[in-house]
Amino acid sequence: MASIGFIGLGIMGKPMSKHLINAGHSLVVYDIVPAAVADVVAAGAQAASSCADVARRTDTVITMLPDSPDVQRVLAGPDGVFSGARKGALIIDMSSISPVVSRQLEQQAVALGFKILDAPVSGGERGAVEATLSIMVGGEPADFQQALPLFQIMGKTIVHVGSYGAGQVVKACNQVMVAMQMEAMAEALVLGTKAGVDPAKIIEVLTGGYAKCRVMEVRGPEILKRNFKPGFKVDFHYKDLNIAMATAAEYGVPLPGTALVRELFSAMRAAGRGGYDHSGIVTILEEMAKVEVKSPK
Amino acid sequence: MASIGFIGLGIMGKPMSKHLINAGHSLVVYDIVPAAVADVVAAGAQAASSCADVARRTDTVITMLPDSPDVQRVLAGPDGVFSGARKGALIIDMSSISPVVSRQLEQQAVALGFKILDAPVSGGERGAVEATLSIMVGGEPADFQQALPLFQIMGKTIVHVGSYGAGQVVKACNQVMVAMQMEAMAEALVLGTKAGVDPAKIIEVLTGGYAKCRVMEVRGPEILKRNFKPGFKVDFHYKDLNIAMATAAEYGVPLPGTALVRELFSAMRAAGRGGYDHSGIVTILEEMAKVEVKSPK
Repeated sequence: MASIGFIGLGIMGKPMSKHLINAGHSLVVYDIVPAAVADVVAAGAQAASSCADVARRTDTVITMLPDSPDVQRVLAGPDGVFSGARKGALIIDMSSISPVVSRQLEQQAVALGFKILDAPVSGGERGAVEATLSIMVGGEPADFQQALPLFQIMGKTIVHVGSYGAGQVVKACNQVMVAMQMEAMAEALVLGTKAGVDPAKIIEVLTGGYAKCRVMEVRGPEILKRNFKPGFKVDFHYKDLNIAMATAAEYGVPLPGTALVRELFSAMRAAGRGGYDHSGIVTILEEMAKVEVKSPK
Repeated sequence: MASIGFIGLGIMGKPMSKHLINAGHSLVVYDIVPAAVADVVAAGAQAASSCADVARRTDTVITMLPDSPDVQRVLAGPDGVFSGARKGALIIDMSSISPVVSRQLEQQAVALGFKILDAPVSGGERGAVEATLSIMVGGEPADFQQALPLFQIMGKTIVHVGSYGAGQVVKACNQVMVAMQMEAMAEALVLGTKAGVDPAKIIEVLTGGYAKCRVMEVRGPEILKRNFKPGFKVDFHYKDLNIAMATAAEYGVPLPGTALVRELFSAMRAAGRGGYDHSGIVTILEEMAKVEVKSPK
């Protein structure tokens, strides 16, 4: 099997890279956290000395990083991927970042003779661990076909959504929808609880009807247990909604609901709860309504 | 099988009453629209001359009506159910109405010696036709047990959610959540489409991931076909959100997202589109963003 570079071994990147190793690929990895590198090396990867070193030793480089500046630095910075990669190398950025930054990096990559895909994912840590991620891919059809066998090792729903940048656009759409569903669930549970109904009953009925959604199935029962351990942090979702709003502003699309939920995530951060799971948005509403969503004893 | 009264033979009541007939119940029905009565009589029901007449001829009366004033008139008005029913009769109101009105009617019913349940449903016309409704029932446990075999003929997810009035509360929670999901879908599709992505691809990826919800599975493809035939009308959902907001105000629960979507449904009505399916809320956003959500040719 081909040798693959993987940069970014965090909550998402670590399980994703291990799936590639387990599928038989020879992996060359890099992360700024030595313990993360050691963990993946113990699983069979080789450590590189820099991002450029990863690129020199492989023909395909995957990046899975927290935010736009990280991807900028890893690809285009000193000792970055662009400085080490061979002409014709395939770069796959699976991070969720600004479509504007993403397009700038694409232009540089193409000018330098590289192939590049944007391929952000949905499904969170669980999706990464279980290899059931949704992967939304933008780029040239031939490059998508080349990368498809790798995507199939890491995810389940893999869709070529358009030309380069379309992946980040669809990821923004995903984050818009999930954010509003979190707020929808919060409003339903707080209203029903304060009006005297056991929220466990509300979840039971609503997930059997038209309101059925994965957000409530996965996080509704955790709210009742007062478990706000992420999952996906408010801080990251706030970042993603800022990306969505900036993209919307660029294209001339008003997003009234998204703007509202962005401000409620901002309230979570102001309250020192940026590290909560995004379902923790319910706590802002609970404080306003002076009630806690939990089942009666 | 017992003789059952059924009042209100509209989009929902007609298929629901026919399921009872097909299960072997002898039905006595009433509606102000003679053609609706004729249709259900052709399926095997007997026609009554008034709501009181329905109550005189049966021990269990089901009502399925559009709004609070209708239920008030049918139960407590002249020649209404209360004036015809025997002591101990069971009245089951399956309409979605104001919890305040509903509680007033309960007090009258109890004072007159009747048993009463509130049992609003979710699932829409399709749920009624396919007998897969979610039914959220409030009232005494013994009354719930008595009515359960009837509910099982009309629905699939049947939950006793609490004492009388709890059914309407949970229905309000359901409508809050579905309304915000409609707006969430609209914002995601309009953003993605205007940013150049085929909305069919967006639906494909999002329904494979964390944003997965029945609202998008059922109505997403219809939006692409520009089909806004209800389903469930904006006018009804606007009514339901007003009920939810009034209930929230009564209990002291701020609902910022619900308030926003209520105003967007109001915009639909102002635009003369109160008869659209509630997924038609996307058209308000399309007009603001100057784009139409449809796949490229």
